Amino acid sequence: MKIGLLGFGVVGRGLYDLMQGRPDMQIKTVVCLEDVQLTDAKVTKNFQEVLEDDSIDTVVEAMGGLHPAYEFVRAAMEAGKNIVTSNKALVATFYDELIPLAQEKGLLFRCTAAVGGGISWLSELERTRRTQTVEAVGGIMNGTCNYILDSMTRLGQDYAEALAEAQKLGYAEANPTTDVEGIDTWHKVILSSNIGFGVSLIPETVPVCGISKIKASDVENFKAKNLVCKLISTGKQENGKISAYVQPTLVPQGQPEAAVPANYNLITLVGSASDRMSFFGQGAGRYPTAHNVFQDCVDVLCGKGFYSPYGEKVAACNEGKLCYYVSGVCDSFIEANKAETWGNAVVTGPVSVSEMHAWLKNNPDAFIAAIQ
Amino acid sequence: MKIGLLGFGVVGRGLYDLMQGRPDMQIKTVVCLEDVQLTDAKVTKNFQEVLEDDSIDTVVEAMGGLHPAYEFVRAAMEAGKNIVTSNKALVATFYDELIPLAQEKGLLFRCTAAVGGGISWLSELERTRRTQTVEAVGGIMNGTCNYILDSMTRLGQDYAEALAEAQKLGYAEANPTTDVEGIDTWHKVILSSNIGFGVSLIPETVPVCGISKIKASDVENFKAKNLVCKLISTGKQENGKISAYVQPTLVPQGQPEAAVPANYNLITLVGSASDRMSFFGQGAGRYPTAHNVFQDCVDVLCGKGFYSPYGEKVAACNEGKLCYYVSGVCDSFIEANKAETWGNAVVTGPVSVSEMHAWLKNNPDAFIAAIQ
Repeated sequence: MKIGLLGFGVVGRGLYDLMQGRPDMQIKTVVCLEDVQLTDAKVTKNFQEVLEDDSIDTVVEAMGGLHPAYEFVRAAMEAGKNIVTSNKALVATFYDELIPLAQEKGLLFRCTAAVGGGISWLSELERTRRTQTVEAVGGIMNGTCNYILDSMTRLGQDYAEALAEAQKLGYAEANPTTDVEGIDTWHKVILSSNIGFGVSLIPETVPVCGISKIKASDVENFKAKNLVCKLISTGKQENGKISAYVQPTLVPQGQPEAAVPANYNLITLVGSASDRMSFFGQGAGRYPTAHNVFQDCVDVLCGKGFYSPYGEKVAACNEGKLCYYVSGVCDSFIEANKAETWGNAVVTGPVSVSEMHAWLKNNPDAFIAAIQ
Repeated sequence: MKIGLLGFGVVGRGLYDLMQGRPDMQIKTVVCLEDVQLTDAKVTKNFQEVLEDDSIDTVVEAMGGLHPAYEFVRAAMEAGKNIVTSNKALVATFYDELIPLAQEKGLLFRCTAAVGGGISWLSELERTRRTQTVEAVGGIMNGTCNYILDSMTRLGQDYAEALAEAQKLGYAEANPTTDVEGIDTWHKVILSSNIGFGVSLIPETVPVCGISKIKASDVENFKAKNLVCKLISTGKQENGKISAYVQPTLVPQGQPEAAVPANYNLITLVGSASDRMSFFGQGAGRYPTAHNVFQDCVDVLCGKGFYSPYGEKVAACNEGKLCYYVSGVCDSFIEANKAETWGNAVVTGPVSVSEMHAWLKNNPDAFIAAIQ
């Protein structure tokens, strides 16, 4: 197996380190913008050197971002090369294009590190589909949000303080929007639902709400009720309909989700036979993530392609009702649905997920959390 | 694939249900002592009918117990049949015989349901070994013990009361010895270590202590320190030495292990690249367990054999030191190692695992728990 590696940052460098001494795989060419010296691989800024090298059978994309990752992956596929990527935004955004293309061309396409970093999540979904129906996927899929929420809960920090510390420790980026607004989790639950349920969810029908509006006073309210706030994604298949959404969720102390510390992930599937199975581990980090990219390369070597056949386009249907904690805004809609007050916040009676997220679009300063 | 199924109890019947409608697998003959009527499989009390049927390529052993399971599996292997079993006692006890025999004869041998019931634990160890070194295995591997300890912690029940309720709910057997004395967990950690580290642990060198001596007063002492008692298995590979043991362990509230409810399992591996990964799920039960037996049949169909090559015989070396909570007995050894008192119990300074378990052999009425 000869590999063209795109990107030599956290994950790319990690993969290079882990693959040292592996006789059946060779990173032949590395495409990156940095000046890197390698004795056993060619380093170039020019992607064409990978594209035009017929001895390279597999392209590992570890650049991140949508562009030029998309153009490079697409061109590599057109040239008949297999793809391994850790880029969730790329796969979730261009799912309808890349997965059918891989199928059509008979190419192997793997992206295990795209969800859960070092956790064997997508490969486990693939395994579970062999013998049972996947009924639900989801959980804590973003280490940045979990780190911030955990710090606020354990140390009583305010949001800004917890975020600043996460940034200092490298758990949050300088611009944390993708993580804290739930976009990263949103990509991951769409990808997990597509693979688990064998469909292609229309992304705009999957509502997402992040954690950036949470205040220390909210966390105080949760503590008083023995609840812990986590950013939780949900994908469910029931009676032929699929619901999918991302939102802060209040979990009782003592539940496995409530005990997920620091920047860890806990991702869950419910199978028709196996019942609940959850996977706990490092959702990010150089070697955990690179390890799953490495695993994908082994699978490509074994002839394993994408995790499930490309399925039909469907809109998520989020008519299921939940009770919500709402703070920061209290208008006539919230008043009309009020069931309780917790401190200066309101707890609603059952409201459908779609209705609540539609309200939130018009009230972006509110903080909401579903009650599990 | 034509299957001879041995046993039609919880797991055997579950497998039969799950395989309905599967075109690539057929349960041809069921060997069981009960009177069962099946329209699509032959039912017999006579194992020879499976043994002498050359069209049966795979024997699924779901009888449990050592005998005659061992004799049947051994004979089936001699006859060139692949084996799938959920029987941890069988595989752990006859590891040195069955695994080399499978290798020698080129037979496929799988036992994923033997550890963790419905959790994809052994298959994940197999996957992880492809790309990294397994540094540690272990965790909460017995649902009966977890149910009892969880009830004592949450409801303040005494041991006898919690056990009786577990028996009433079917989580504990009428004779609970194998579970509560840690034997079941002991088999599982030996098997996990053998596969994870590629060795064959000498079982007598792996000490085991169960939970039958725990009292409500011990649980009170733990609560006062924000600790939760769990039966935890440990297998570790460090500097070329392997340590392995099973013992009650005190875990701080807020740790993932502390939050494992009811009869669930939480099993952990530490990989050299992936860091900690934990697997949470149903460690027993008809369909979760049968589902992993089913998965093994799919793997046999794909030509997958045992999880790792048979490795050399090694003795566990448990010289690492831990602090222990000790109640029920206080003699000169405990006095000499005393660091603190918690209620009427003693907490020792660091004592080696092997020394503590040697002491326990002579003081079987004591309850001990390691402090994590």
